[in-house]
Amino acid sequence: MTRWPLPEPMRMALDEAARAAGEGEVPIGAVVVKQGKVIAAAHNQPRSLCDPTAHAEVLAIRAAAAALGQERLEGCDLWVSLEPCAMCAGAISHARIARVYYAASDPKGGAVEHGARVFEQPTCLHRPEVYSGMGEAEAAELLREFFRERR
Amino acid sequence: MTRWPLPEPMRMALDEAARAAGEGEVPIGAVVVKQGKVIAAAHNQPRSLCDPTAHAEVLAIRAAAAALGQERLEGCDLWVSLEPCAMCAGAISHARIARVYYAASDPKGGAVEHGARVFEQPTCLHRPEVYSGMGEAEAAELLREFFRERR
Repeated sequence: MTRWPLPEPMRMALDEAARAAGEGEVPIGAVVVKQGKVIAAAHNQPRSLCDPTAHAEVLAIRAAAAALGQERLEGCDLWVSLEPCAMCAGAISHARIARVYYAASDPKGGAVEHGARVFEQPTCLHRPEVYSGMGEAEAAELLREFFRERR
Repeated sequence: MTRWPLPEPMRMALDEAARAAGEGEVPIGAVVVKQGKVIAAAHNQPRSLCDPTAHAEVLAIRAAAAALGQERLEGCDLWVSLEPCAMCAGAISHARIARVYYAASDPKGGAVEHGARVFEQPTCLHRPEVYSGMGEAEAAELLREFFRERR
């Protein structure tokens, strides 16, 4: 049997998530892609950076915007290992990200298909296309393992 | 007649907002206070910093966390000139801000009493106390003037 490979950006996002775990951070990774090219990759770092906003998505978006020298990431896609929270969904919308691909759903902290459902609000100024599920088992297992070891 | 003065942190948040306008940024300012002492002040800077996450609240929270050398701002209050958006409300919750004081409501982009109502979600892990209205006329006029000049 041959397992269908994950798209390269999701593979990278999951590798970033694993890197976070190795640093004692909650394992979540994110990658920003423009026209097929990875322009930023990041993982969760609130502890090491002393920054409660340093989620993988926010760090990847900030790095991508800095790399492009512009505030908005029109035409860019974000690949992330977990359903974004309200803060990150808001950042995605402000950044005008075109498409969001996330691996695992997050019923506890997610704000795309759960909770605040940021993109579904009539006041949401920019709604990306959203695709979920690719790599979800691996993303969820990284998180389970991380919290299992800490209990 | 003597007009009752604004609390000092709100006065500072409004002055930060005016500073943003002077730099061509949407006039919103924020201040973080701990035990009566201002530990961070910031204004909206997404354009000048090429960073879509550079809202006043996020910048003030990041600066406060860096100043304290910790990821969480327990016992800290945030004073801001406008109702926070979903991104900023999420950041406030992640930072464990104790109290939020905001001047003007924002029916278009706010996510505290409008839209995503981030703090009211059952999945919201930390809800600050929220007080609004102080300085709202001045905060709203700064915004009106800014957009009037740009039309």
